[in-house]
Amino acid sequence: MKHFLITVIIFLGWSPVFSQSSVTQDSLEIRRIYDMALLKGQAYQWLDHLSNKIGPRLSGSYNAERAVQYTKQELEELGLDKVWLQSVMVPKWVRGAKETAYVEVGPDSRRDVKITALGGSISGSIKAEVVEVQGIEDLANLGQEQLKGKIVFFNKPMQANLINTFAAYGGCVAQRYSGAAEAAKYGAVGVMVRSMNLRLDDFPHTGTMSYGDLPVSSRIPAAAISTNDAEYLSGILKLQKDAQLFFQVNSEQLADVESFNVIGEITGSEFPGEIIIVGGHLDSWDLGDGSHDDGAGVVQSMEVLRLFKELGIKPKRTLRVVLFMNEENGLRGGNKYAEMAKKNNENHIFALESDAGGFTPRGFSFDTGDAEFAKIESWKHLFEPYLIHLFERGGSGADIGPLKNGKTVLAGLRPDSQRYFDHHHSDNDTFEHINKRELELGAATMTALVYLVDKYGF
Amino acid sequence: MKHFLITVIIFLGWSPVFSQSSVTQDSLEIRRIYDMALLKGQAYQWLDHLSNKIGPRLSGSYNAERAVQYTKQELEELGLDKVWLQSVMVPKWVRGAKETAYVEVGPDSRRDVKITALGGSISGSIKAEVVEVQGIEDLANLGQEQLKGKIVFFNKPMQANLINTFAAYGGCVAQRYSGAAEAAKYGAVGVMVRSMNLRLDDFPHTGTMSYGDLPVSSRIPAAAISTNDAEYLSGILKLQKDAQLFFQVNSEQLADVESFNVIGEITGSEFPGEIIIVGGHLDSWDLGDGSHDDGAGVVQSMEVLRLFKELGIKPKRTLRVVLFMNEENGLRGGNKYAEMAKKNNENHIFALESDAGGFTPRGFSFDTGDAEFAKIESWKHLFEPYLIHLFERGGSGADIGPLKNGKTVLAGLRPDSQRYFDHHHSDNDTFEHINKRELELGAATMTALVYLVDKYGF
Repeated sequence: MKHFLITVIIFLGWSPVFSQSSVTQDSLEIRRIYDMALLKGQAYQWLDHLSNKIGPRLSGSYNAERAVQYTKQELEELGLDKVWLQSVMVPKWVRGAKETAYVEVGPDSRRDVKITALGGSISGSIKAEVVEVQGIEDLANLGQEQLKGKIVFFNKPMQANLINTFAAYGGCVAQRYSGAAEAAKYGAVGVMVRSMNLRLDDFPHTGTMSYGDLPVSSRIPAAAISTNDAEYLSGILKLQKDAQLFFQVNSEQLADVESFNVIGEITGSEFPGEIIIVGGHLDSWDLGDGSHDDGAGVVQSMEVLRLFKELGIKPKRTLRVVLFMNEENGLRGGNKYAEMAKKNNENHIFALESDAGGFTPRGFSFDTGDAEFAKIESWKHLFEPYLIHLFERGGSGADIGPLKNGKTVLAGLRPDSQRYFDHHHSDNDTFEHINKRELELGAATMTALVYLVDKYGF
Repeated sequence: MKHFLITVIIFLGWSPVFSQSSVTQDSLEIRRIYDMALLKGQAYQWLDHLSNKIGPRLSGSYNAERAVQYTKQELEELGLDKVWLQSVMVPKWVRGAKETAYVEVGPDSRRDVKITALGGSISGSIKAEVVEVQGIEDLANLGQEQLKGKIVFFNKPMQANLINTFAAYGGCVAQRYSGAAEAAKYGAVGVMVRSMNLRLDDFPHTGTMSYGDLPVSSRIPAAAISTNDAEYLSGILKLQKDAQLFFQVNSEQLADVESFNVIGEITGSEFPGEIIIVGGHLDSWDLGDGSHDDGAGVVQSMEVLRLFKELGIKPKRTLRVVLFMNEENGLRGGNKYAEMAKKNNENHIFALESDAGGFTPRGFSFDTGDAEFAKIESWKHLFEPYLIHLFERGGSGADIGPLKNGKTVLAGLRPDSQRYFDHHHSDNDTFEHINKRELELGAATMTALVYLVDKYGF
């Protein structure tokens, strides 16, 4: 400890003495934050309830509303200064009966394959020959001649040699999001997309898709197929070009319904007009229970405010937790929150989102200017004892994106990404895949950053 | 890329130009290593065989010998310059029939609890009252008066607020290793140890223990109890001080048997007398299948040499993989290897062990001098694109420890440690808990370091 202090003193060049004690105080306060999160954390118990007692929380569903009520009640029990619901109209897409699909290589030879409708897909029952492509860019070359009446099979895999798996996701998610809209233009009758999963397994992964400006009459059903079955289908097509794929999707887009962002606040003691928010999204897909996406971010964000209360840290600035509704298929909650913030002339100095899974935190990504980033980087050494090394510039989070105004500093927690797409948007995103310590370390890491932002501002 | 090169040039102060191209070449070569490991890796398939086709590999067991034969054969298929077995006598401890245990709070009230014999324990069947302690240091205070005829229940938990879980392990493993030897001195008749596990669950965790210089007649049986049942037992003892614990252990220490370290080598093209080794231990406990401890380290070490071969990188120095036998309950393989290295006047410049699980690699720990560490630190930037940030000084690995001579640089791979003790030495250490990418990233990270050590030496 003596050695540590000497190092700090040398680092600061002895002046001002104030800074030395301030740095020491910060490191002690951050130690208290991690201790409380790891020894007496609440995030894991909250997530247990959200995942196991409530379950998947697709926008507009009964479970989504239960999640709103539950988290509001839990925030109220923390004794925050204010807790409220922010009304927002959300789309209501329902899956209907479970999808079915098989590959037919002859009249007596069918094999079932595991699929799931993409979120937003229309219903439909289709049997047709299949054209395999490696992405939207292949469609123009094939043209209407080869695609009309066919099912387009988008089979571009996630690139396994990218270290950040979100980069691999970004590299092929367009085929899921816009594949149906593009394939329909060439007369395709359906779309089957390889699941966004780096692993070979039997889970189909859903996710949002859009028909863009395609007229309703031209829309075609779209589903995702498990990676194992994508490999199978691709193999069959090499052997037998005219093999047929049957698939049925039973989903429906209903009218928008009212839902809510859940918001809790500790009002700042010195600068109440400077607002700091932490958040995640309360909705999830309807597969699994949404533990990693984004139950983890929800409970970590709640834990940030709980830790402030529990440790008796009174923020100088106003500290809010925002649990956004409808990130997965509309971003209505994020848009609504930003719209209201603007309307109310609120000054958000900092927004932090956790929406990349409840895995061991590695650091943060910041969407901000040079001066603010330099200030943040000066705090980096305070995180090293907790093995938090990554302070990079880049994106933040979808829900806080609409707050971007060139002034507000936006940030995203960056957990280890290696396992995320084993779970994302599938039946495999369940509570048993959450490690309590990893979840708690994420919450503590977020709290430490918020503590510093609150103390020093921008 | 342009920007990167400029940065490099500034960093190097323009001189010598040679260094610039050398740094670029290193970063390209390391990129090739990661690409090959992630796109065409072999480690996961090897581990599948070792874990699922062979299984647990306790020293002296049939499975341990099958693992020796399997890995030797796989190394031979890599086309290395030499593959051989190094004979070593190892202890043969056998568990015997599964242990049984129950807590009795009254004549008609028994509850079974989950235990496992500690490795090295004698057999025995005991029923007695229980004295709970928080570590060996409590024994002297209680004395013979309170311990004679009792079962000592060592219930010190791992400290959850330590970020590195190995530090938490280090803080309470003494009660497992020496608890029985110490408690027996006060007349205790048996020892029950809380499993070394940060999580509350139903898996008892074994591990090695020693009776020290205790005469055979004074030895007492020792077992570990699951963390859930440790909490239960502790709770019962608060309600009813005279509750009794029954437990039976059926193990036996047989005569030593012959086993082997498995060694493969690519002979150096320029400095064959300078030896670099990478290794893990081939033996495991007899619970689970030893996937993380240390199947992962075994296949990652094999993968290092495979990647050199596959990528056509001819090492200047001699590169060896050493799969050590008997790390868990004797370290005979590690001692034997070091003894033979000394006897043969071999010059080991570098030894790297992977024995901390197959999780996402975070960096390395180095046991070395200042000059060597400074050299290693100058390579740090080459690892940053792979999110490898941790280059610390400290321990290395148990098997390579005996090579320590003040000259050889010793290193240990440091994967993320959060989940390790959920699995370690228990039925929960199985292949399904291995993530393919995390395992492969570890192998690539080891290979990159070995590439640099081979190229630049010490």
